[in-house]
Amino acid sequence: MRTRAAVALEAGKPLEVMDVNLDGPKAGEVLVEIKATGICHTDEFTRSGADPEGIFPAILGHEGAGVVLEVGEGVTTLSPGDHVIPLYTPECRECYSCRSGKTNLCTAIRGTQGQGLMPDGTTRFSMLDGTPIHHYMGCSTFANHTVMPEIALAKVREDAPFDKICYIGCGVTTGIGAVINTAGVEIGSTAAVFGLGGIGLNVIQGLRMAGADMIIGVDLNDNKEEMARKFGMTHFINPKKVENTVQEIVKLTQRGDDHLGGVDYSFDATGNVNVMRDALECSHRGWGVSVVIGVAPAGAEISTRPFQLVTGRVWKGTAFGGAKGRSEVPKFVDWYMNGKIEIDPMITHKLTLDRINEGFELMHEGKSIRAVVEF
Amino acid sequence: MRTRAAVALEAGKPLEVMDVNLDGPKAGEVLVEIKATGICHTDEFTRSGADPEGIFPAILGHEGAGVVLEVGEGVTTLSPGDHVIPLYTPECRECYSCRSGKTNLCTAIRGTQGQGLMPDGTTRFSMLDGTPIHHYMGCSTFANHTVMPEIALAKVREDAPFDKICYIGCGVTTGIGAVINTAGVEIGSTAAVFGLGGIGLNVIQGLRMAGADMIIGVDLNDNKEEMARKFGMTHFINPKKVENTVQEIVKLTQRGDDHLGGVDYSFDATGNVNVMRDALECSHRGWGVSVVIGVAPAGAEISTRPFQLVTGRVWKGTAFGGAKGRSEVPKFVDWYMNGKIEIDPMITHKLTLDRINEGFELMHEGKSIRAVVEF
Ligand SMILES: [Zn+2]
Ligand SMILES: [Zn+2]
Ligand SMILES: [Zn+2]
Ligand SMILES: [Zn+2]
Repeated sequence: MRTRAAVALEAGKPLEVMDVNLDGPKAGEVLVEIKATGICHTDEFTRSGADPEGIFPAILGHEGAGVVLEVGEGVTTLSPGDHVIPLYTPECRECYSCRSGKTNLCTAIRGTQGQGLMPDGTTRFSMLDGTPIHHYMGCSTFANHTVMPEIALAKVREDAPFDKICYIGCGVTTGIGAVINTAGVEIGSTAAVFGLGGIGLNVIQGLRMAGADMIIGVDLNDNKEEMARKFGMTHFINPKKVENTVQEIVKLTQRGDDHLGGVDYSFDATGNVNVMRDALECSHRGWGVSVVIGVAPAGAEISTRPFQLVTGRVWKGTAFGGAKGRSEVPKFVDWYMNGKIEIDPMITHKLTLDRINEGFELMHEGKSIRAVVEF
Repeated sequence: MRTRAAVALEAGKPLEVMDVNLDGPKAGEVLVEIKATGICHTDEFTRSGADPEGIFPAILGHEGAGVVLEVGEGVTTLSPGDHVIPLYTPECRECYSCRSGKTNLCTAIRGTQGQGLMPDGTTRFSMLDGTPIHHYMGCSTFANHTVMPEIALAKVREDAPFDKICYIGCGVTTGIGAVINTAGVEIGSTAAVFGLGGIGLNVIQGLRMAGADMIIGVDLNDNKEEMARKFGMTHFINPKKVENTVQEIVKLTQRGDDHLGGVDYSFDATGNVNVMRDALECSHRGWGVSVVIGVAPAGAEISTRPFQLVTGRVWKGTAFGGAKGRSEVPKFVDWYMNGKIEIDPMITHKLTLDRINEGFELMHEGKSIRAVVEF
C-alpha cells in the first residue's frame, strides 16, 4: 500500500512529506493507522544529527495513537479496530529482562530496533523508487500508517481521544512513571524537578498524584512557572536569580531537626549533565534518590564526588518511566479519562502532517509544550 | 586519669606512643577500656595527611572492642562491665535521620564528631602538658582507655573475643552490610567485587551468606585469589591479565537468553574512581546495582555516561554497611560466634600498642589483611 509520511532524508534537514510504500504486516506484526502523533525532543535529537546512532532515511516519530487495520500471522492479542498506542519500549513478557520482573527494558527486538529495522531485519517502508526507509524507535509514527510488532502495541480503551492519548506514548508515561515506578515517591515527600518542559510538567503531576508535600520546580525561564504551578509545583527557582540552586533547595527543605535539608527525590528533565549533578547533590543525605530522565548529548558524562553516594544518595535513571507498556499504558489512559492526570493543557499546538516542520520550530522557540500532528 | 595511647601529632608522621590525660565521662558519656583495636585504611588516610579534614594532634583508631569502666550522668543503657564495640556511626534513635528509618547516618553528634570533639565541644584527651588532643571518628581506639557517647557504643555478648570482634567495628560490618543492607542481594544473584583486601573479603562472605550464585573477585594481585576463594569467591579476574575487565565480567555472566551479561550487583572496595566506574558499567542493564564502599582521594570524582543510568543501572554507596550500630552490631557478633561469618583468618597480625606503627607498615606492604593491636 501507499501512505503519506514525513521522511527524514538526511541529518539536519527538515522532514519531507511524501507518499511512501508500506508493505503489509508479516508474522507477529500489525498494520496501524496512526491518528495522531506528538513531536518529541528525541525526534529532534535524531533529525538534527545530534544522535550519533541516527540512521537515514527514516520515518521518525514515536509518540502516537491509532487503530489496528490488519494483523499478521500469529497475532493473537490484537484485532482490526482495536485502538493502540505504539511502544518504543516493547513488552514481550518472555525475554530474560521481561521475566526478571526488575525492568521494563525488554530485549526481544532490541538489536533490530536499534538498526531501524523490523525484527526480521528488513524494513516495511520504502521510497516510491524502492529505496528502503528505516523505522525509528520501532514506531515511525510520522506516517499515516505504520507496521509494528504486536509486542510493541498497547491496546487501549476506544473512548479516549487520539490527539491527547498519543502523548502517553512518551512524555506522560516517562514523567509520571519516573515518579511512581523508578523513584517510588511516598506521600509527604519533598521533591525537585529540573526543567519544566513537557517531561518536567509530567513529573510534577506525577508528584502531585504521589502525594508529595513540596514540589520545587527549577527552570531558567520564568514563563514556565505559571503552567507548572497549575500541575502542582509548590515552589519555583530560576537558577539565574539565585547564587546557588543546590543551596537554595537545601534551604527550602530544612524540615528535620538535623537542619540538613535536601529533597527526598529529584528529577533531571533537562538532559544537561551539570544539572544532573545538581539534582543529585540537592537530594537529602542518607536517602535522597535522584533520577536522570533527560537524554544527554553524545559523549557527555555525569560526575560527582563518590562521597555523595557514600553518604546515602542514590543515582538512577529511567527510560519510558520504567513502565511496562502493554501492562501499564492502558492504566495511564484510564487515569487521563478519569481526570486523575491532565493532558489537555500540555497539547499546545495542533498541526497537519504537511506542517510538521513547524512543530519542530515551535519546540526550538520554546513556544510549545507539545505539538501534535493529527492525520 | 592517665592512659597510654598512640598519638598522631602531625600529618605524615608515625604515631607516638605516650601517656596522656583522660578526663572522666560527662553526662551521656561512657569510659571504655579498649581491649583490642584493628588498624584500618581510614586511620592511614588521616595519619598520612591525605584526608583534607584531618585534625592533629589526635588519637586515631575506630575499630575497637572493650569493656565499660564507668558511665556518666544519665547513661541508662550501659553499665560497668558491659562489653562494647565503639561506633563511628552512632545510633541515637531520636534524630530526624534515625527516625526516618531510611538511613544509618545518625546526625545527633555529627558536627562535633567531625571536629574531633565530644558532643559538648571539648576533648577528654590531653597531653601531659595540658594541650588538648582531638578525638577521631568519635572513637579514638588507639588508646587503652577512651571516652565515648553512650549512643556510639554497641553492647555485645561477653563470651566474644575482643581481638576478633573489634573488626566488626568497621571492616566486617562495612563489607557484609554493603551486601545485605545497601544492595539487598537476593539468593541466586551474580556479583562482582573490586578489591580483595579486608573490605572486599567481607563483601565476599556477605555475598556467600546472601546466597549469591556467582561471586567474581577482581584484584591486581594474584596472591589475593586463594584467600578470597576461601571466603566464597567463585571466579577471579586480574585486570592486568585481561584486555577489558568489564567485558570479561560481561562474558562470564551471560546467563539470560538476552546474552547481555553483567552482574546483578557490584561493589567497589578499592577507593579508585576509575574502578568505581568499571563496577557500575559491568552491572546488568535494567537492574544492576553498584555500591561504592571505598573512600576516594580528596577531590577525586566518579563519572559515567548518563545512558548507564537511563538503561537501568543504579549507583549507590554505603557507610558502615548501612548498619544501625547499636541495633545491628550485636547481630554481627552473634553471627561470628555461631560460625555464620568468619573473622579469624582475616586477623593476620597481632601487635602491642608500642609496635602500632609496624601495623601501618604491614598495611602498606600489603602483608596484612588486618593487624590488630591488643592491650
Ligand atoms: Zn519521546
Ligand atoms: Zn521482553
Ligand atoms: Zn575503618
Ligand atoms: Zn540519630
